[in-house]
Amino acid sequence: MATRTASNDSNMTVYDFPVGPYPTRVRIAIAEKNLQSKIHYEFVDLYKGEHKKTEFIEQKNFSGTLPVLELADGTLIAECTAITQYLDTLDGAPILTGTTPLEQGVIHMMTKRAEIELLDAISVYFHHGTPGLGPLVEVYQNQEWGFRQRDKAIRGMHYFDKVLQQQSYIAGEKFSMADIAVIGGLVFAAIVKLEVPPECKALLSWYERMKMRDSVAQQPAFAK
Amino acid sequence: MATRTASNDSNMTVYDFPVGPYPTRVRIAIAEKNLQSKIHYEFVDLYKGEHKKTEFIEQKNFSGTLPVLELADGTLIAECTAITQYLDTLDGAPILTGTTPLEQGVIHMMTKRAEIELLDAISVYFHHGTPGLGPLVEVYQNQEWGFRQRDKAIRGMHYFDKVLQQQSYIAGEKFSMADIAVIGGLVFAAIVKLEVPPECKALLSWYERMKMRDSVAQQPAFAK
Ligand SMILES: N[C@@H](CCC(=O)N[C@@H](CS)C(=O)NCC(=O)O)C(=O)O
Ligand SMILES: N[C@@H](CCC(=O)N[C@@H](CS)C(=O)NCC(=O)O)C(=O)O
Repeated sequence: MATRTASNDSNMTVYDFPVGPYPTRVRIAIAEKNLQSKIHYEFVDLYKGEHKKTEFIEQKNFSGTLPVLELADGTLIAECTAITQYLDTLDGAPILTGTTPLEQGVIHMMTKRAEIELLDAISVYFHHGTPGLGPLVEVYQNQEWGFRQRDKAIRGMHYFDKVLQQQSYIAGEKFSMADIAVIGGLVFAAIVKLEVPPECKALLSWYERMKMRDSVAQQPAFAK
Repeated sequence: MATRTASNDSNMTVYDFPVGPYPTRVRIAIAEKNLQSKIHYEFVDLYKGEHKKTEFIEQKNFSGTLPVLELADGTLIAECTAITQYLDTLDGAPILTGTTPLEQGVIHMMTKRAEIELLDAISVYFHHGTPGLGPLVEVYQNQEWGFRQRDKAIRGMHYFDKVLQQQSYIAGEKFSMADIAVIGGLVFAAIVKLEVPPECKALLSWYERMKMRDSVAQQPAFAK
């Protein structure tokens, strides 16, 4: 794992694959929270299967996925939702995960739903219905399951389109972690060339708005 | 959907299948928070596929799963983690989801990990590698995928055993939502007759301790 960027006062490390849909979620959260100067990114090469090596599994993340946040004292936090929850509440002024029990509940629900119905479904399609990360990593594929998940993701797009016909953001009238999860889903959709159905007008126009946010536009996943 | 129990001052409804592993998670959280008198349980018959009917999907939970929490004003919160987050923070004194950013981050990570590596894996095995909820509900099965997920769950048991060799609870030295998620996993393991490997002594003795907690012992899933 080679070091990519470091800054002098950085005290947290993110194990990262800069254009990956899940790492992009945490990168957006970091930008929304203006925490860039505190973060040192360490590159893990997914195509070389560095995340499936025993060392990474045992020492960083049992699930063998990115991103992982490592604190100065060595504490590890994996899972985008957990990392976002941590980073967002660190300064006592959450802007992504809600400030009331109701906001928190709805944001966690919609974030999870974005994973189940869109992002994770496309991830399974990528790993099982396409060449995925290549023969080094994809040692078992179940194509039929991959294609089912692709179809599920398309239904998910229609669902989120309906949500966005009623409200400005995925979890209500404020930008949140749930929007970031759906952005991750559409980043992954582009990678696997899964088009958002053109009739999903509300979802498409929300996505155009999202891509104009600084925190989103600056991500490697959106580099032209 | 027939009403099961109601109490006079109940102001929240939980759509429930009392012995289900996921509903059991929320039932334990409700008991830990002493919220029983506020909750009215509404029975949804999974074996009749009531959760897959258009009405339920459109009006209660797009993902077609239980539990779902409905507030007095009609607001719906699905997903065990989101429901637990809401209920735990309602009185301003969280005991299940952490009180510091670090606790919150680690609890959310371990809860998600319990889902990915144990509970959700067993759920997929149940729905794809066994008769599951029966022919009315299981209209598509992918056996090979089901068996892979069963094997993944066994690896997950070994992982949580290792965690519990180092610490008293899944997310550290305090009982939390993450313990509840692993309990859900072992409830589901019993349903599908997936034995915890006898060498997982730390996991097994933790589970014995967990089953002695009031909030756990009182659940229909543990009725003898
Ligand atoms: N549940 C995890 C999923 C993370 C994930 O799947 N990350 C991708 C990178 S975009 C990954 O590491 N994939 C590698 C693999 O599954 O082999 C999270 O929310 O952080
Ligand atoms: N991600 C959901 C999963 C809930 C779930 O799968 N619940 C089960 C009940 S134990 C269910 O509704 N299964 C019905 C089905 O999948 O057909 C959560 O955490 O609440």
